[in-house]
Amino acid sequence: MKKTVLITGGTGFVGSHLTEFLSQDQNLDIHLTAFGPKPDFFSNLISDEKIHNLDLTDFQATTQLIKVLKPDQIYHLASFAAVGNSFEQAEKILINNTILQLNLLEALKIHSPKSKVLSICSADEYGLSLPQEIPINETHELRPVNPYAVSKISQDMLAHAYHVSFGLNIVRVRPFNHIGERQTVAFAVSAFAKQIAQIEAGQLKTLKVGNLQSVRDFTDVKDMVIAYNLLMEKGVGGQVYNVGSGQGLSMSEVLNLLVKLAKKPVVIEQDQARMRPSDIQTMVADNSKITALGWCPRIPLKQTLQRVLDYWRAQL
Amino acid sequence: MKKTVLITGGTGFVGSHLTEFLSQDQNLDIHLTAFGPKPDFFSNLISDEKIHNLDLTDFQATTQLIKVLKPDQIYHLASFAAVGNSFEQAEKILINNTILQLNLLEALKIHSPKSKVLSICSADEYGLSLPQEIPINETHELRPVNPYAVSKISQDMLAHAYHVSFGLNIVRVRPFNHIGERQTVAFAVSAFAKQIAQIEAGQLKTLKVGNLQSVRDFTDVKDMVIAYNLLMEKGVGGQVYNVGSGQGLSMSEVLNLLVKLAKKPVVIEQDQARMRPSDIQTMVADNSKITALGWCPRIPLKQTLQRVLDYWRAQL
Repeated sequence: MKKTVLITGGTGFVGSHLTEFLSQDQNLDIHLTAFGPKPDFFSNLISDEKIHNLDLTDFQATTQLIKVLKPDQIYHLASFAAVGNSFEQAEKILINNTILQLNLLEALKIHSPKSKVLSICSADEYGLSLPQEIPINETHELRPVNPYAVSKISQDMLAHAYHVSFGLNIVRVRPFNHIGERQTVAFAVSAFAKQIAQIEAGQLKTLKVGNLQSVRDFTDVKDMVIAYNLLMEKGVGGQVYNVGSGQGLSMSEVLNLLVKLAKKPVVIEQDQARMRPSDIQTMVADNSKITALGWCPRIPLKQTLQRVLDYWRAQL
Repeated sequence: MKKTVLITGGTGFVGSHLTEFLSQDQNLDIHLTAFGPKPDFFSNLISDEKIHNLDLTDFQATTQLIKVLKPDQIYHLASFAAVGNSFEQAEKILINNTILQLNLLEALKIHSPKSKVLSICSADEYGLSLPQEIPINETHELRPVNPYAVSKISQDMLAHAYHVSFGLNIVRVRPFNHIGERQTVAFAVSAFAKQIAQIEAGQLKTLKVGNLQSVRDFTDVKDMVIAYNLLMEKGVGGQVYNVGSGQGLSMSEVLNLLVKLAKKPVVIEQDQARMRPSDIQTMVADNSKITALGWCPRIPLKQTLQRVLDYWRAQL
């Protein structure tokens, strides 16, 4: 008997890599929720009738899907992601992310209380940290700096409340930065790589950057989805797990690695429009909880960056 | 020159006591926001034109008020409070409390960035705790058990984000249980006291109770508003402060104290309808941050309970 797996936000960046990874397992019957048109990418992976066009902020539609599928496992990725401009879109992000979470939890409570759920939250919830608090473990005080982070906290905390109050089997995950092909240019590494590809193609003169001083913890999205799969199997309901490499790298170091892969010289230009009202200096994961379950990142950063650059070259 | 003070939710339980306390200071020009009809109580305290009938979830109205008043100080109490039934009203509570917070912060960012703001959050944000974590300090991990607590976390975290990103001078406060006259029977001590008054008056046979095992930290609302006033003067922007007595008392101990004040014998009956999907066993404040500023609770619990009981006797 196959296991029914639902991936919410399944056609997004992480969803696409997760679908690719889980599709290798013939014992899984994989369904996705998607919001908007289905990318071509999925044609060979998932048959059309298993891609459910659905806005999780619609309670009736969400309830109906959960009632019909009663998934054994749910990778809950769906979320409105907007870090850079989340103050401009604060109300929309807060309401949408809160309500879609509430709808899914209520639907599960009513129709599928035994589903194992991975609720994908965010390391952005931690926000500010002091030097002595690095690396950041799961009990780190939450000090968010923007509405997007607050909306992820709201999702995280609702998952906790429904676990405690109704016994829903929900594992919460706080991923640190993850990168790979198909990520949008709202994220720095994609923005860098696309611009390099454009410079190589003669379409652009300079590479515009925001704050390069901040230090981040980068994981290949393909390693990230392996962590998610491991947490689905071994994560303990109610618990929260960081996922990250545990290594910090400044944005300027990452940029330098990418520039070294460029086929033309790259001129870098500071762009005030890419600076945020507040930025977090350092975000590095204490990953001891997830590594104790047997995960560690496998793919070297250089290899990931090469893939991202090649992806953007192919898009031009 | 008088200071302009705005109390949001000023006609509510805590708002009424805070207004009473601050009215003694002739150097304050006190304004309230109220939602719904003004209780008679305020006639002698505040003139009608300073009570602004306003729903803070209305962005235009909120912005207009802040633009006109540009308050020196804001005691931000307004919130939809519903602990007992917050799962039934989850969507409303989450949206309302999140949006009213966002509206006030945006209004301040635009029209009154120098206001000192006390954002009244809740000890419910802490939720579950382990015995070794008692008393609970401000860095305690947030483990909420219901949507009301999640909505207060959302308010708390938005206040933090706007402080960090735009320099708003916001002090966050997490009060533990506080009690006094004019509190609704949605809260246990009022529910106990009202029933005792009804039993004394021959209107009721038994006193119905929920979970009596839980341990709480009770502060007289009149001591609580003194703490708020102190934090308005001495609290540091961006910081969060617990307010509580630091003493834990089981609900059954509180009930016993009240029953001793009754003029007739009281029969107690367990009521399943008053039990919650999940309840927090123990909530006791580590109040060292606020006591270091010079606050301590002055009013003995027995005296508070006597006042609450007399209040309900007078209401019948």
